[in-house]
Amino acid sequence: MSEPAAKVSLTGIKPSGEVHLGNLVGAIRPALRLAEQYDSLYFIADYHALTSIRDPELLRHYSRSVAASWLAAGLDPARTTFYVQSDVPEIFELNWILSCVTGKGLMNRAHAYKAARDRNIEAGEDPDVGVNMGLYNYPILMAVDILIMEADVVPVGKDQVQHVEYAADIAGSFNHLYGDSYSFKIPEAIIPESGSGDVLPGLDGRKMSKSYDNTIPLFLPENKLKKLVRRIPTDSTPVEEPKDPDSSAVFQILEQFAPDSAADVVADTRKRLQEGGMGWGELKNILFEVLNSELAPMREKYNAYMEPGSELDDVLARGAERARERASRVLSSVRKAIGVD
Amino acid sequence: MSEPAAKVSLTGIKPSGEVHLGNLVGAIRPALRLAEQYDSLYFIADYHALTSIRDPELLRHYSRSVAASWLAAGLDPARTTFYVQSDVPEIFELNWILSCVTGKGLMNRAHAYKAARDRNIEAGEDPDVGVNMGLYNYPILMAVDILIMEADVVPVGKDQVQHVEYAADIAGSFNHLYGDSYSFKIPEAIIPESGSGDVLPGLDGRKMSKSYDNTIPLFLPENKLKKLVRRIPTDSTPVEEPKDPDSSAVFQILEQFAPDSAADVVADTRKRLQEGGMGWGELKNILFEVLNSELAPMREKYNAYMEPGSELDDVLARGAERARERASRVLSSVRKAIGVD
Repeated sequence: MSEPAAKVSLTGIKPSGEVHLGNLVGAIRPALRLAEQYDSLYFIADYHALTSIRDPELLRHYSRSVAASWLAAGLDPARTTFYVQSDVPEIFELNWILSCVTGKGLMNRAHAYKAARDRNIEAGEDPDVGVNMGLYNYPILMAVDILIMEADVVPVGKDQVQHVEYAADIAGSFNHLYGDSYSFKIPEAIIPESGSGDVLPGLDGRKMSKSYDNTIPLFLPENKLKKLVRRIPTDSTPVEEPKDPDSSAVFQILEQFAPDSAADVVADTRKRLQEGGMGWGELKNILFEVLNSELAPMREKYNAYMEPGSELDDVLARGAERARERASRVLSSVRKAIGVD
Repeated sequence: MSEPAAKVSLTGIKPSGEVHLGNLVGAIRPALRLAEQYDSLYFIADYHALTSIRDPELLRHYSRSVAASWLAAGLDPARTTFYVQSDVPEIFELNWILSCVTGKGLMNRAHAYKAARDRNIEAGEDPDVGVNMGLYNYPILMAVDILIMEADVVPVGKDQVQHVEYAADIAGSFNHLYGDSYSFKIPEAIIPESGSGDVLPGLDGRKMSKSYDNTIPLFLPENKLKKLVRRIPTDSTPVEEPKDPDSSAVFQILEQFAPDSAADVVADTRKRLQEGGMGWGELKNILFEVLNSELAPMREKYNAYMEPGSELDDVLARGAERARERASRVLSSVRKAIGVD
């Protein structure tokens, strides 16, 4: 555990899909680097995923799989607090309490709701068609996630800054009404510096993203990983001709993903492509080898965590216990402040 | 406890003011009569009151005072389940879950929100000014109150039928999505037949209601009750002249409130007023005596319950335990159905 004086950082992870290489490079690794400076909390936001995932098997699988992925990628549960949102019931009671001090106008201006409403209006529909109250309310639940853990900082992407601002707003409303008795800590958003390698191209050269269907899932079995790499589209430039490494998705993935220890391989490959004489097939083999040697040990850990009754359950149970200690302390102060005790 | 086969009835009691004589006659007594036919649950809806009560002392006092009032009025905690909403945390987790299956359109049409919005629009304001998300969301919380206890029937006034319809709607949405695994019981509203004595006039002859500021608080000390009765406005008809009992608030309260055992006193008083010779002062003395002989034993019980550390705490703790048994059984099935387990 960190020193008591360390600032508290909170990161929420929405389990809404299979973790892919782009997540590892763009989200997991930066978050783990950041963890070293803070008293860090990470949680699997399964109840946020419920606003869109209706298939219980899928929600169950993603929650477990995302947790196993972060652990396999190096999250150290002894040095951080790692828990599942639904294991902390205090969150949902505070969610009601903070609803009562949150103006409806604030929710009307939330990005995700506004986007849904605008799409409906554009389609000539009623503005609220297909909008469920989970989607509409989720900025409050997100504020609770942050405030109940008394987080100082929340590392977010630029498009997520509003959530932290809302948490600060809602905390301010509560503190204004009940601050004599209990005041929430006002959280701040921090936007992690993205290293040059933090945006990974996908199979089609665009940013790797589930919504483009161009991802490399993180824990494919070796033979499937090999097949997937082989299927990355390339042009028909003959083997002997020079090739532009910077317009090849295969090379881009290699360059962005390769660890420092493989820097020589990357430099050599770039040179050989530019000179001519290296075909796409050989390049793909190199990419596969680099990927696989990096991913194989993680894959092994991941598969072990995914076994029923694995250590994952204990890790998350211990995390939930620590998270509930924090949460119940805050909730108990809040209940006293509002007169529900 | 009732037979296992008995239908389950649920009544919520919002602790938003001092209980008065009109509540006793119009709400508490009819509810207690109804309890005899059902496996009855009653709860103090303190987290509903939070949408409007910002003073912690007041919320704390009303919650305790309303619970003590119902017990003093005859609610039998051995034959019913009597609990405080905030003692059942399962309610708030289910509240989030059901938010995710509730369309926003449904909330837009809820009476209380529509009324607030219409007032704002009429005043030329933004429609959502002063509307907090507790007010906007409370039909969902109310649905949860009902569904988590698997209530068959909910006795309500005519203006509250929508709440039960919403609970049925929301249950229907959940059952449609997850019914293979768990289905909520669909609740029904019942509107209790109001006896002739169920609407009590207030000090000014209109219906007794907190909003008219014309109430007789239920547990005034004897001397204050006497003073309040003496201050009921009357006209200056001299003692000896005949008086119309049916246009006198004092006589109306007497007639509606008097127990069967005082029927003779009521009939005699009516006759004497009509014949002339009875002044307002004497009528008020009769009303005070009838009120006080009915209320004195209740007042004593109420005062005992209101003592710090009284039996009230044990009663509510036992009620919470029973309520949580029901609630956690339902929540656990729901979690399994949605894939959060």
